Amino acid sequence: MDLTKITNPSFLKNLNQQQLEALASDIRSFLIEKCSVTGGHIGPNLGVVELTIALHKTFNSPKDKFLWDVGHQAYVHKILTGRAGEFDTLRQFKGLCGFPKRVESEHDEWETGHSSTSLSAAMGMAAARDIKKDKNYVIPIIGDGALTGGMALEALNHIGHEKTNMIVILNDNEMSIAPNVGALHNVLGRLRTAKEYSKAKEELESLMNKIPVVGGKLAQTAEKVKDSLKYLVVSGVFFEELGFKYLGPIDGHDFEALEKTLDYAKKVKGPVLVHVITKKGKGYKPAEDDTVGTWHGTGPYKMETGAFVKSATAGPAWSSLIAQSVHKCMETDERIVAITPAMPVGSKLESIQRDFPERFFDVGIAEQHAATMAAGLATQEMKPFLAIYSTFLQRAYDQVLHDIARPNLNVFIGIDRAGLVGADGETHQGVFDIAFLRHIPNMVLMMPKDENEGQHMVKTALEYNDGPIALRYPRGNGIGVPLDEEMVAIPIGTWEVLREGTDAAILTFGTTIPMAFEAAEALAQQGISVKIVNARFIKPLDTAMLHEFMQENMPILTIEEAVLQGGFGSAVLEFAANHRYSTLIDRIGIPDEFIEHGNVDELLAEIGVTAEEAVQRIEKLIQLKQQESLKTV
Amino acid sequence: MDLTKITNPSFLKNLNQQQLEALASDIRSFLIEKCSVTGGHIGPNLGVVELTIALHKTFNSPKDKFLWDVGHQAYVHKILTGRAGEFDTLRQFKGLCGFPKRVESEHDEWETGHSSTSLSAAMGMAAARDIKKDKNYVIPIIGDGALTGGMALEALNHIGHEKTNMIVILNDNEMSIAPNVGALHNVLGRLRTAKEYSKAKEELESLMNKIPVVGGKLAQTAEKVKDSLKYLVVSGVFFEELGFKYLGPIDGHDFEALEKTLDYAKKVKGPVLVHVITKKGKGYKPAEDDTVGTWHGTGPYKMETGAFVKSATAGPAWSSLIAQSVHKCMETDERIVAITPAMPVGSKLESIQRDFPERFFDVGIAEQHAATMAAGLATQEMKPFLAIYSTFLQRAYDQVLHDIARPNLNVFIGIDRAGLVGADGETHQGVFDIAFLRHIPNMVLMMPKDENEGQHMVKTALEYNDGPIALRYPRGNGIGVPLDEEMVAIPIGTWEVLREGTDAAILTFGTTIPMAFEAAEALAQQGISVKIVNARFIKPLDTAMLHEFMQENMPILTIEEAVLQGGFGSAVLEFAANHRYSTLIDRIGIPDEFIEHGNVDELLAEIGVTAEEAVQRIEKLIQLKQQESLKTV
Repeated sequence: MDLTKITNPSFLKNLNQQQLEALASDIRSFLIEKCSVTGGHIGPNLGVVELTIALHKTFNSPKDKFLWDVGHQAYVHKILTGRAGEFDTLRQFKGLCGFPKRVESEHDEWETGHSSTSLSAAMGMAAARDIKKDKNYVIPIIGDGALTGGMALEALNHIGHEKTNMIVILNDNEMSIAPNVGALHNVLGRLRTAKEYSKAKEELESLMNKIPVVGGKLAQTAEKVKDSLKYLVVSGVFFEELGFKYLGPIDGHDFEALEKTLDYAKKVKGPVLVHVITKKGKGYKPAEDDTVGTWHGTGPYKMETGAFVKSATAGPAWSSLIAQSVHKCMETDERIVAITPAMPVGSKLESIQRDFPERFFDVGIAEQHAATMAAGLATQEMKPFLAIYSTFLQRAYDQVLHDIARPNLNVFIGIDRAGLVGADGETHQGVFDIAFLRHIPNMVLMMPKDENEGQHMVKTALEYNDGPIALRYPRGNGIGVPLDEEMVAIPIGTWEVLREGTDAAILTFGTTIPMAFEAAEALAQQGISVKIVNARFIKPLDTAMLHEFMQENMPILTIEEAVLQGGFGSAVLEFAANHRYSTLIDRIGIPDEFIEHGNVDELLAEIGVTAEEAVQRIEKLIQLKQQESLKTV
Repeated sequence: MDLTKITNPSFLKNLNQQQLEALASDIRSFLIEKCSVTGGHIGPNLGVVELTIALHKTFNSPKDKFLWDVGHQAYVHKILTGRAGEFDTLRQFKGLCGFPKRVESEHDEWETGHSSTSLSAAMGMAAARDIKKDKNYVIPIIGDGALTGGMALEALNHIGHEKTNMIVILNDNEMSIAPNVGALHNVLGRLRTAKEYSKAKEELESLMNKIPVVGGKLAQTAEKVKDSLKYLVVSGVFFEELGFKYLGPIDGHDFEALEKTLDYAKKVKGPVLVHVITKKGKGYKPAEDDTVGTWHGTGPYKMETGAFVKSATAGPAWSSLIAQSVHKCMETDERIVAITPAMPVGSKLESIQRDFPERFFDVGIAEQHAATMAAGLATQEMKPFLAIYSTFLQRAYDQVLHDIARPNLNVFIGIDRAGLVGADGETHQGVFDIAFLRHIPNMVLMMPKDENEGQHMVKTALEYNDGPIALRYPRGNGIGVPLDEEMVAIPIGTWEVLREGTDAAILTFGTTIPMAFEAAEALAQQGISVKIVNARFIKPLDTAMLHEFMQENMPILTIEEAVLQGGFGSAVLEFAANHRYSTLIDRIGIPDEFIEHGNVDELLAEIGVTAEEAVQRIEKLIQLKQQESLKTV
């Protein structure tokens, strides 16, 4: 069928099995085709085609509330709620968001991008329903990986306690982004293979009934045993212990099983967990065959072969460069231990995992645990390298502050995907880390100008033994500079002048350095001479250099691909105020708003983080300085 | 015995049962006496006297590592490791810390103050041990309340998966700070009363052996049943499911049971959880009889009666004032729902809990879940009031950013204990919230000058429907101003001039306002006229007023009882830079370091947040302004 004709999911009510299967097939073809052009989270979405159809057939959205945990698996939901026509713009500037979005549709009541939030939000929605005495279903759909996130476990604990009516769909595909880890995963594994065990339960009950009751002590024992069995012999005992009725496991690609179980779930009083087994990438061979998570989220690919369309990039991926540099140091420094919260592939740690299995820990989606485990390692004179995306480090803010920085432990935090990330949009932009780390005492924070400096910064971090040190690096690829043979530590808190100039200085770091050069070249045409400083240490600042510039009363422009509030530029303002310099300072960076999805260059242009803007700001600064000097003459 | 003679715990090895009991009794008397003067966490410590002694007798600290979760129950540990002599200075300025502290003793390898960190840190320590092929025990001691914190559950999941050797002591007193909630608590409750059930397990096994094996199908069934029973019929199935060997429950005041079980635990391979039942406040009747948590942590009290020594305070406790104001609004506004993460007593929510049970949720120690549940409520047009201590809000940073502020949901965050908290020290100071909230888009943040403004701000927050709004209020009591009959909302982003002045302006809010008045009075003596502004909105700033002051080129001093980096003063600097004002601005606040325990006034004096400092800074600003105007004449 023409999916773009769908306006809402009510048409599903009348479809028979055959029609449902035809629809599923159409949706798969549509997704494979569309994502081959735009890229996207194709694997997770192919896995939930039947599940999403069955949910929309069984329940009545938006009266009933679906909460898609993490949210990257909501494409089928978007198609069924009237958004198929917008898929050509998926994840593009001003286009369809890759995650549920409240402003997009009344069917997207919960928007997210980070993992493990759906159960807590569902508890809030269910509580609101019960207070208002409304009647509707609340249905969070959570993956087996997301379930290990601490806040999901907090929510399970609370929901079970409150006995709230809620239907939790556990979408178990044995893989979230990478293959899942954790004891809970083992619990699910046992359940998945528990057909025999479910049967054993039935047989045990029937057997118990056959035990001859001869009176006396044995009879009493038998009664007691039956009582305890009633409580013990249930499948899904882990969830039952927490107060949930456990249903499953069921085949998530079998419409009949899905509908039957969901219908049954509707009748259960209190919280129920429906364990659904799905296959990530289902129906598209390249994605189905993926065992490491390559097809979790992709760029464009050739539909026929599944070959990825390589974009022309100069340098190595930043994640690879950093991981390889750490790997190199691990060869000689046995203190180094690498930790990732479920991102071994994203953070390119596979070779560390392979070569140093005893010094590598994938802890699952558990950022808080990852950070504090690193602290624990550091107390024992180890040197943990915690690789974590900037946006997910937000989850470990308290752990970084309270467990790492407060006791001043030697943890090396590799902040991956720092800055704008593009297509994943506002839930994933790594633009807050400077503002939330800079005010933490004892913290050192740096960002390299290129891959070569990146490897030297890895060395810097690993040699630094005076407390926590964080190295932020962007998403995507480096610029392709040659790497020095030897890695050499950079003195903490030292900047470098990249271009001499006498009329004004641009202080910037990382991805915005080329922008500074572009601006300086343009200004040179007007006879304005601009100094460019690689402010590679965001904390501590290079105070010697700042004193020098400010004593010369040189106008300063800071540029950062991060939020302006409390950011690097503010640090420079604070320095000037502390030392009572009257230097003219202006700042370019991300304004006080959430930045949506789109190409990074488009986004930067939209918010005015550009060479053109830098040119204008410097012209203005110089003009102001001239006015001031006229006054004082 | 004279406890101050203890230098290390090795003397315990040779004590017999009777001597151990005498020691326990001495420690109890010592704690009850010392804490009656200094205040402290008397309840939790009285509960772990035997447990701590047994641990130090069984293991060899510091080779074996004890990690005291939350850390407020480490007094007995401090006594046994040679610090009894310092208890007169407990929680006082430059005195003994109320929590484990690495610099205090080699026996304090893990320092903390926030809940639920010990398992993650223990995993790090155990990993380090295994990498280094050392032999030692790692023993986290965690309460049943702390176990529901998400990061503890993340850690359980990871430890069970890795099968790491570790002895987790679950100190189950059925109460953390308030009575515990959560399904996991129910799990523990079942285990506590499971003597019969443990017996049933044994009996079941013996029964199974008695089942006549007649061959054929029934025999096969019986075999299968036995297999599944082996897996199912274990007590502590929840923990066993997660890969832990479960031992217990045992009486935490019975030396023999403790030693026997701990000795057995040492022999277990892989992670083991020892479930110890203790009685909070054990041995001191007023504390034993406590059912709500009053004796969790106290100020000074009369030892004989347990009557608290009231300090002379002018106004009501801030927590009460805010809670009562919310209560008043709940009477007419049915959208309001109150949420606390385990602090119903601390945040004085008891009357809300009593009068509006359907609109009150104590979610347990689960700050992340609390915040996102609030977001879920807000999506359904409810108005959640999330009461949370500033220091614990750090745990929910990502949830505030990603789940509340990003979709701009109407959540009212009551930030309790904002500013310095005193005796609890560096783990509990509420000094980062401004810096970590100010850079979050859509956030409104305010702090009242007195109780009356506090109640109006509650009204302001509850009437505000344009996104998240946070109200920070200090620990302790108000200044005793009369309350207006009617609560009236204050226009968002408006400040008020409290004192007119022409030479300089002090911008400040909350607890530091009296300091500004003191400084202004002193400066008036010198003929310097200082304006005082109640900058009650920290975000958004009152830009009209700022434009006015800066156009007049009036020197500005900001004062805040919060970190300077990225704080309120920085917001003023940013405003001036954005609008290219050359106003002289100076800032007083908390420097870039962690602030230890002590009386708040002592701490403020130590870091220079004082009226005297304000006087000096303003003198300097005025002097600089005069120099500048000389230049421009």
